[in-house]
Amino acid sequence: MTLILNSNEIKHCVQFNKDLIPIIEDAFKSLSLGKTVMPPILRVDIEKYHGESDVKAAYVEGLDSFAVKVASGFFNNSKLGLPSSNGLMILLDSQTGIIKSVLLDKGYLTDVRTAIAGAIASKYLSNPESSTVAIIGAGIQARMQLEALSLVRDIKNVKVWSRDINKANEYIQTLKKIYDFNFQAFDNTNDLVKDADILITTTPSKNPLIKFASLPKGIHITAMGSDAEEKNELDPEIIKNCDIYVPDNQAQTTILGELNHAIKKNLITKETLFYDLGKIILNPELGRKSNNDITVADLTGTGVQDTAIARYTYSIAKNKNLGMNVE
Amino acid sequence: MTLILNSNEIKHCVQFNKDLIPIIEDAFKSLSLGKTVMPPILRVDIEKYHGESDVKAAYVEGLDSFAVKVASGFFNNSKLGLPSSNGLMILLDSQTGIIKSVLLDKGYLTDVRTAIAGAIASKYLSNPESSTVAIIGAGIQARMQLEALSLVRDIKNVKVWSRDINKANEYIQTLKKIYDFNFQAFDNTNDLVKDADILITTTPSKNPLIKFASLPKGIHITAMGSDAEEKNELDPEIIKNCDIYVPDNQAQTTILGELNHAIKKNLITKETLFYDLGKIILNPELGRKSNNDITVADLTGTGVQDTAIARYTYSIAKNKNLGMNVE
Repeated sequence: MTLILNSNEIKHCVQFNKDLIPIIEDAFKSLSLGKTVMPPILRVDIEKYHGESDVKAAYVEGLDSFAVKVASGFFNNSKLGLPSSNGLMILLDSQTGIIKSVLLDKGYLTDVRTAIAGAIASKYLSNPESSTVAIIGAGIQARMQLEALSLVRDIKNVKVWSRDINKANEYIQTLKKIYDFNFQAFDNTNDLVKDADILITTTPSKNPLIKFASLPKGIHITAMGSDAEEKNELDPEIIKNCDIYVPDNQAQTTILGELNHAIKKNLITKETLFYDLGKIILNPELGRKSNNDITVADLTGTGVQDTAIARYTYSIAKNKNLGMNVE
Repeated sequence: MTLILNSNEIKHCVQFNKDLIPIIEDAFKSLSLGKTVMPPILRVDIEKYHGESDVKAAYVEGLDSFAVKVASGFFNNSKLGLPSSNGLMILLDSQTGIIKSVLLDKGYLTDVRTAIAGAIASKYLSNPESSTVAIIGAGIQARMQLEALSLVRDIKNVKVWSRDINKANEYIQTLKKIYDFNFQAFDNTNDLVKDADILITTTPSKNPLIKFASLPKGIHITAMGSDAEEKNELDPEIIKNCDIYVPDNQAQTTILGELNHAIKKNLITKETLFYDLGKIILNPELGRKSNNDITVADLTGTGVQDTAIARYTYSIAKNKNLGMNVE
């Protein structure tokens, strides 16, 4: 029997809270320790519709189930009045391959585990007293990253830039109702990052939006927009000149992340090895050395995060007796 | 809304019949004409449990939906009294990425489209008057390949070899009830292939089971067991010495199929280009030239077959008003 969970049931099971942080941290630790089987991402590109479907999967040693996840982004959907994101997760029994559950989350769990990874990056790499965050983009991740960040840092000021400033203003109108932060929209990214303690980039931009020279001392950057070869939000000089660069998984960021562009520009060699996020979680001293360090977390999204959140969701759903069994 | 189809509904929609042949032929034609986006297979290996999960996907230009398919083989399952195969198919809207359907087929559709591909290979490559088939293996595919082959050739004699001859005898006992063929079990593969018009290999063997010298003139071989780097049923000399070698998709057989082993042994260069099955379907004259030719079809299983059969199943289910819609 396969347990089918619909999107409402999944949202009922998984809300933003601090419990998710150690769950995703454990996933990164396993990945860093090599206790995983995580094959390269499978991607179907449908250029005609400006769409892509990614499949990620990871088995973590010792766990009795693992996830295969399909996540789609179809970027003409907004013209049709539809969300661009979509997807589902499949949970398989590690011992038999039997499909325990299909989680029809429409991309929600991917959004959550991505935002939680951002929070983890800021927890370990940003200055503890960080209170001002600059956000590039005004979409779902721009919202969820802020929500997740507020679990780990005492945020007071939120600065927002979007290619369309109306979207930045809409973002502020929406979030003002929930959060008591000082919000401000910006029409250029230099002013945006000035005085910011943390910068979060969340767009599918194909051209760098931030120069190294504009960065204040001590800033931490979480770059989570780049998850495909051609995507690039940070000037590659930032990857070269920052004090600490941390990939979620270097095998992926070499191909898909901000690191990819620094390698292509010969600013960094392919052979240079960086501590990944799991290593920093296991030994935080490997991260930031001083208040003035500029740190960068390059997050492309990993299958281990999917396995972690799918397992978490399934266990809660079973406890709550949610879902429908199908033969 | 996503239409969930359970395994019984799927079996009700899709039975073995000649209608499936042109559907899978069209898939191979599209693949051969380059009208597809078919990324490399994603594979999760779980060595501890002798298990593997493969993900295949393919978009065919012009079609309004495409499939992502998960198929697992966990080879310790028989000890637990469970089938080794498992899986599901997901049908996505090509324009929006919305998940139209989840087909909980437990691997049935993969078995069917694999067997139909075998029938197509024999239809185009074997001598038309072929009546004697030799089968290596006694599992599900050994059964389904025979069932599919009988759609395209007038089979009279079935010769079976299995590592365990009891399994070959069980196979015969089961199929005797359905088919009026002359069945015979063999304890060695040399006698098995003698006088055979068609040979079908269906095992996950890692060592060649058939030598070139044992092959009779004019035989057609469908090798469908090898779908992973280390699997190998035919002596690589067969690939070198046969008259016509036909991959389902050379990008895959170079890595996963029988061709892989011939390349590794330096019997064939990586650069040698072969007509694929789709090309032979489009122009059958590119296939067998004489009754004496020895032909080989190397089938690793392709995402386009999955997209074709998932679309077919979905359309029948919609017509029959089967399945359950989930938000």
